[in-house]
Amino acid sequence: MDGNATADKVARAMLAAEGAGPAWGIALLEACEGYARICMTMRADMLNGHGTAHGGMIFALADTAFAYACNGRNLRTVAAQASIVFLDAAREGDELIAEAQEQALVGRSGVYHVSVKAADGRAIAEFQGFSRSVGGLVIGESE
Amino acid sequence: MDGNATADKVARAMLAAEGAGPAWGIALLEACEGYARICMTMRADMLNGHGTAHGGMIFALADTAFAYACNGRNLRTVAAQASIVFLDAAREGDELIAEAQEQALVGRSGVYHVSVKAADGRAIAEFQGFSRSVGGLVIGESE
Amino acid sequence: MDGNATADKVARAMLAAEGAGPAWGIALLEACEGYARICMTMRADMLNGHGTAHGGMIFALADTAFAYACNGRNLRTVAAQASIVFLDAAREGDELIAEAQEQALVGRSGVYHVSVKAADGRAIAEFQGFSRSVGGLVIGESE
Amino acid sequence: MDGNATADKVARAMLAAEGAGPAWGIALLEACEGYARICMTMRADMLNGHGTAHGGMIFALADTAFAYACNGRNLRTVAAQASIVFLDAAREGDELIAEAQEQALVGRSGVYHVSVKAADGRAIAEFQGFSRSVGGLVIGESE
Repeated sequence: MDGNATADKVARAMLAAEGAGPAWGIALLEACEGYARICMTMRADMLNGHGTAHGGMIFALADTAFAYACNGRNLRTVAAQASIVFLDAAREGDELIAEAQEQALVGRSGVYHVSVKAADGRAIAEFQGFSRSVGGLVIGESE
Repeated sequence: MDGNATADKVARAMLAAEGAGPAWGIALLEACEGYARICMTMRADMLNGHGTAHGGMIFALADTAFAYACNGRNLRTVAAQASIVFLDAAREGDELIAEAQEQALVGRSGVYHVSVKAADGRAIAEFQGFSRSVGGLVIGESE
Repeated sequence: MDGNATADKVARAMLAAEGAGPAWGIALLEACEGYARICMTMRADMLNGHGTAHGGMIFALADTAFAYACNGRNLRTVAAQASIVFLDAAREGDELIAEAQEQALVGRSGVYHVSVKAADGRAIAEFQGFSRSVGGLVIGESE
Repeated sequence: MDGNATADKVARAMLAAEGAGPAWGIALLEACEGYARICMTMRADMLNGHGTAHGGMIFALADTAFAYACNGRNLRTVAAQASIVFLDAAREGDELIAEAQEQALVGRSGVYHVSVKAADGRAIAEFQGFSRSVGGLVIGESE
């Protein structure tokens, strides 16, 4: 299987196996080697005390795209650190799109950039994630 | 009303008004000026594809404590940026406690440290949040 | 003057006016709108206690590229926050190249990615900078 | 030797052996287990194009305090990542004090908070550093 097909298969398996992504209504738009694009629609139960999208949910969306991108080589990889800049508010009903792209990969360490944008193109947040591979595969050979 | 009473009132009002905190089962343990401590129990719908607590939910918990701490003077304040280091995995059923403490406040800008620990004291994550006050009050004078 | 010419002129003026860049031997390779590329060679007085390039100097190089990129529209802009991941060590005599690229610009806020690489292409660090414009011009109309 | 004496000895040895700290005029004020406090005076060759202290030098000061604090157990430890929030400008002649404090230590990973203040108490920057121990000692048994 080539690298892009593996990345797509791993992302689909991760989303299907996890509790969080389906509970949040995350949809996988594209996954290939070092890259993932997903979307999620902001619901009433994702709003903060100011009535806008909770920073935690914007981070969660970016972090999910990061997870699919950094596990795409089928090497079990976890987030070591992440940083996010919040640029604009999102509201109930807004569909947000997170696009993760690998910036560097050195030994067990990887760095990924994730942009979060509203469907109309407005920049909502910019995220940088630092991953570490921890040994083992994400999905079995026969899956 | 003194600063600690105001902070407690604001935190309670924010949690009651928001969609996210109650949906996640967040409980407010303490809020005073420049400080907040909250807890949340990890559920099946908060797990990632590796079967451990989703980084997005650990961030969301820390970010919520940060929000209560930085709005505690009843000046409407939003997150501009945040950084998190993930130190250990949490599992389904683990109760996590986030404790937010103000580190600096200069003009409209504030910096807060949030530690996330399991109930047994294990360090799960360390978070640093950068806030900006944006004008206006969080709760009305009469609330 | 077009945007790229302005960015180049601002970067050259900033480097000429500052104490730090010339003291560090920084050379400007290219500057255009939302972009800057610079280089610096690691000297003995830039090494840490482990005998490798001090993280502070790697950050300083990235931060300088970020400053030229975010001031390139000739609107006085300062760093509000930055995050850096260190991926590999650099040694005395290594020439490091920092390339800054704008990721988002919303109102007064900007986000920039800076990669720091050795001349042989090795990834040394990945940096994300968050800028705020503060009013006023960097260089006068007649400069 | 107790933990505090070891930390002090390691910090002194690191500062004496490195190129950077002495070149920047860094002075060690105190080092004990999980803690270091140092100072540095801003010189003309540390200023940026706006005529204020270069963010790179403010980071370098914080990063140096972080390095002494995270190597204080005499286990060779390097910075994996760091994040800094810039709160106020510093000027030529300002003495800046960086105080590093351990927030968490889990296996090979550590998290440290560093505050950077002017001598008059003004908050200049808040820094969070993420370290990884890499095996080996910093100073020999007989040193």
